[in-house]
Amino acid sequence: MAKILTLTLNPALDLTVQLPVLVPGQVNRSDEMHTHAAGKGVNVAQVLADLGHQLTVSGFLGEDNLQAFETLFAKRGFTDAFVRVPGETRSNIKLAESDGRITDINGPGPRVSEAAQQALLDRLDQIAPGHDAVVVAGSLPRGVNPQWLRELIQRLKKRGLKVALDTSGEALRAGLSAGPWLIKPNTEELAEALDCEVVSVTAQAEAASRLHAHGIEHVVISDGADGVNWFSVGSAMHATPPKVSVVSTVGAGDSLLAGMLHGLLSADTPEQTLRTATAIAAMAVTQIGFGIGDAAQLAQLEQGVRLRPLTEQ
Amino acid sequence: MAKILTLTLNPALDLTVQLPVLVPGQVNRSDEMHTHAAGKGVNVAQVLADLGHQLTVSGFLGEDNLQAFETLFAKRGFTDAFVRVPGETRSNIKLAESDGRITDINGPGPRVSEAAQQALLDRLDQIAPGHDAVVVAGSLPRGVNPQWLRELIQRLKKRGLKVALDTSGEALRAGLSAGPWLIKPNTEELAEALDCEVVSVTAQAEAASRLHAHGIEHVVISDGADGVNWFSVGSAMHATPPKVSVVSTVGAGDSLLAGMLHGLLSADTPEQTLRTATAIAAMAVTQIGFGIGDAAQLAQLEQGVRLRPLTEQ
Repeated sequence: MAKILTLTLNPALDLTVQLPVLVPGQVNRSDEMHTHAAGKGVNVAQVLADLGHQLTVSGFLGEDNLQAFETLFAKRGFTDAFVRVPGETRSNIKLAESDGRITDINGPGPRVSEAAQQALLDRLDQIAPGHDAVVVAGSLPRGVNPQWLRELIQRLKKRGLKVALDTSGEALRAGLSAGPWLIKPNTEELAEALDCEVVSVTAQAEAASRLHAHGIEHVVISDGADGVNWFSVGSAMHATPPKVSVVSTVGAGDSLLAGMLHGLLSADTPEQTLRTATAIAAMAVTQIGFGIGDAAQLAQLEQGVRLRPLTEQ
Repeated sequence: MAKILTLTLNPALDLTVQLPVLVPGQVNRSDEMHTHAAGKGVNVAQVLADLGHQLTVSGFLGEDNLQAFETLFAKRGFTDAFVRVPGETRSNIKLAESDGRITDINGPGPRVSEAAQQALLDRLDQIAPGHDAVVVAGSLPRGVNPQWLRELIQRLKKRGLKVALDTSGEALRAGLSAGPWLIKPNTEELAEALDCEVVSVTAQAEAASRLHAHGIEHVVISDGADGVNWFSVGSAMHATPPKVSVVSTVGAGDSLLAGMLHGLLSADTPEQTLRTATAIAAMAVTQIGFGIGDAAQLAQLEQGVRLRPLTEQ
């Protein structure tokens, strides 16, 4: 069991609304509404907890709507190291009509002051020691610039932590320059951050090699149902997930990241690490939500994962 | 200062979302999102608190999203006598586009068990004594039938409380049969509950007279900008509000009800009671939200209210 810290700088309350049909400009009645504490780092923490690890969760939380988060953290036994900021954590509303159409309305979230940013750095200085790794995941809140993320990662590295980074756009670009231990972009996110084409395996291998030279040991490139390419120093492997019925892709990327961390921190073989991580991600798409409820189902999915070295292509 | 209890059986978290334009089926970004604890009884309590009264609030609250309610009650100094029930209090989402179009999506709210209904009756038996009046306001949650509301009102009356009822449909019909002290329907709600036309003043007077015979002392019929007709035993008065710029009608009816209670419980003259209540409702429509922030503005609005006896028509 590892002790892992996850950082969610811009968490969200997911509000899922089911309604027969959405008529703009009218009063619509919803059959079901459910609120969930979410955000990439929070999701990753839940999957890691299912895998038996000990979690600390941190980042910024709006003080006006804490309840769903605090309830989840207490229920899962997470150590809560979130810095509270004035205002409401953003809500991401998902309107699901009975014909399957989905309308998302994503909130802006609180503006995070420099004082709050400093408070988080101070808190991380206190709590980081004793953790084996830290996951920095998701977008940046208003008020936080990508350079601050770079400094955050550098600071965590100086404290001796392995830093896994999962973000996109300018934040990913700035984060890469700090040389995290592991990144998990999809093809599009990596192309945007590096400003180059990374569709072919050859291009990905070249990009990974440059990233390795920058100190980034693990480049995990996810491509949905097509699988995962994992480039580590001196080795490259592809995993194809088993075919599953897709219920919801929410949390699939977070599940893959959690699975990779689990294997790497448990000193599993690379093959076992990638196999399990891919199966956990496949499991996530078979359910509303994510997480490992059924160990037998996971074992079966693992059997369905196909691995091959990328060098053989 | 009176001691007043308000009952909100089906409160709501109002989630106001501002966005440039709502595109169904897409990911939309919102500029602003705000959550407010709401529900008719909660709103009435806030206006009564602004008027200097001491409040106890009760009803049913979903235990999974209490924070906004508990924060409001603490801030306003309300005694919190809500019964907690499993699940989430419903959210009413209001999507406001920049062209002024409003789309409402109203949640279903928790299903309230018979045990919770009994728990509320027991709690009311304990806390009702010592209150001067009780406001029963809003719709019924899932699981609560109109007959239960009738029993609730009868029980409160037996405890010596003046009961003000503000609801609609089947709930109003059942509530009327329990003979509350005051009701405040609009024309449409009264017509539906009585199953007869009540557009003309003559028809309203006849309906009010039948209601008076049933023990309902005060029949307050609101008709938006056209004003208020108040039929009490032996007296009938109309108030026309001053012309104001309408910003939002949210809370206007609740403000009128609070104003009527204020005057009646403070032993103001009928004229002063109706004048102030009408001005408070007019004030509510000039603002986002409601409440009495500016006493000078209220005094000015009071001057603009025109009163006339309805018998002179």
